[in-house]
Amino acid sequence: MDVLKTALLQIRVKSDKKENLLKAEKMIKEAAENGARLIILPEMFNTPYESSNFPVYAEEYPGETNNMLSRLSKELGVFIAGGSIPEREGDKVYNTAYVYSDLGKVVAKHRKAHLFDIDVEGGITFKESETLTAGDSSTIFTIDGMKVGVIICYDIRFPEFSRRLSLDGAEAIIVPAAFNMTTGPAHWHTTARARALDNQVYMLMCSPARDVISSYVAYGHSIVTNPWGCIVGQCGTDESILYADLDRNHVRGIREQLPLLKHRRPELY
Amino acid sequence: MDVLKTALLQIRVKSDKKENLLKAEKMIKEAAENGARLIILPEMFNTPYESSNFPVYAEEYPGETNNMLSRLSKELGVFIAGGSIPEREGDKVYNTAYVYSDLGKVVAKHRKAHLFDIDVEGGITFKESETLTAGDSSTIFTIDGMKVGVIICYDIRFPEFSRRLSLDGAEAIIVPAAFNMTTGPAHWHTTARARALDNQVYMLMCSPARDVISSYVAYGHSIVTNPWGCIVGQCGTDESILYADLDRNHVRGIREQLPLLKHRRPELY
Repeated sequence: MDVLKTALLQIRVKSDKKENLLKAEKMIKEAAENGARLIILPEMFNTPYESSNFPVYAEEYPGETNNMLSRLSKELGVFIAGGSIPEREGDKVYNTAYVYSDLGKVVAKHRKAHLFDIDVEGGITFKESETLTAGDSSTIFTIDGMKVGVIICYDIRFPEFSRRLSLDGAEAIIVPAAFNMTTGPAHWHTTARARALDNQVYMLMCSPARDVISSYVAYGHSIVTNPWGCIVGQCGTDESILYADLDRNHVRGIREQLPLLKHRRPELY
Repeated sequence: MDVLKTALLQIRVKSDKKENLLKAEKMIKEAAENGARLIILPEMFNTPYESSNFPVYAEEYPGETNNMLSRLSKELGVFIAGGSIPEREGDKVYNTAYVYSDLGKVVAKHRKAHLFDIDVEGGITFKESETLTAGDSSTIFTIDGMKVGVIICYDIRFPEFSRRLSLDGAEAIIVPAAFNMTTGPAHWHTTARARALDNQVYMLMCSPARDVISSYVAYGHSIVTNPWGCIVGQCGTDESILYADLDRNHVRGIREQLPLLKHRRPELY
């Protein structure tokens, strides 16, 4: 198939986990009804984004969140990239994105590999490493013949990581992400466009909706950019669904006209 | 010294080489009078940007262009990053950027490492490799204690190359560049901002002025971006000089607050 229909669910995350799962289910069904083949959820969509919450909301695989994603993907016949959730394994908690096929099977699992520890003067301070452990791999799955990479939020800051995925054949990269009110306005659009342009892939960045009364205010603006670096579509700050068609012919065309991946000179880097 | 005063000369390049050199001399003197310590010229500032011109305008080192740059840097007590010129060595022609110290000595020489061969549908077609040979190294020099990388135009398309320079200690990267009316509007600003942001360096991209009657129409918009990804200043399309102060304390501050270079995980890439 040359065109992949996707939907990014910009969910407003609440403190009640059950409510978050019900909302996700409702929006997944709506996206499937509207023809989406790949449905993407935001980072930490079942818990408010706070270090202290992660161990509390964490589930061992397969927990109630994974069971729901598996059930829905099979029932609706769609792929679901389940944003990310706090996942417990032994005494560790990870920020993990599970991807389910239309048969309800896990086809990819990415654990955030770069933890978000920053302290911007007059802006955001956050330390994920207080409660989370980093993953150790890069992640790709295949849907209808198209290779799709998965990274999580801060992972996108490292151009080498997206490059790894494009060199491994990715034509699109999914990024559940919760930028904030410091880094969002400053860096969200530029990074979304640059990674797409440099790697000649679609970038699909799915944020929670903005909730100004939460302790960590997500930027919103879920966005899809294309291999020419253009914005295909984006949400505002409210809860909403962004639909985007990924066209493999466009990927091929851009890669022929501007052969960046071919012109690399790895011996110099 | 913590602040480095720079000037980017957005020269309108003509077909007459002598005229180009006189114009460069005049603008270099003006920038030096205005206090610039590092003066940057555009890509191929002594020849109109056309593949067929490069062998014709090419000089063996040290030719008249290099002699002028050496003389002026010593006379004015400034560093000059001489944009780039077509340079002949044996039977090969390179797109080469020479950098002169305030003593008139060559402190860096960068030969464009990625040749610009593209063919965009309904847009630009150009094949540098018809007449040019690519260089084989990355290039850094030191000015007043600050390490500055040098790349040329299409080199900026490859995030690994700027990354190499930042890992080698560069706090700023000079980019003589002639984007065109296809790639300029589409990619110039995004790339300038993303490379600065990802590598936490200043990017200084110096273009020729736009000349709509030339066969290759340069985009103009010479630009300086800072380690937070902001635009410090930019030219329009006319001949002009852009002044920018590079503040090493700002580089250090950003790298402390958002420690991207420290958070890299090279074992995963």
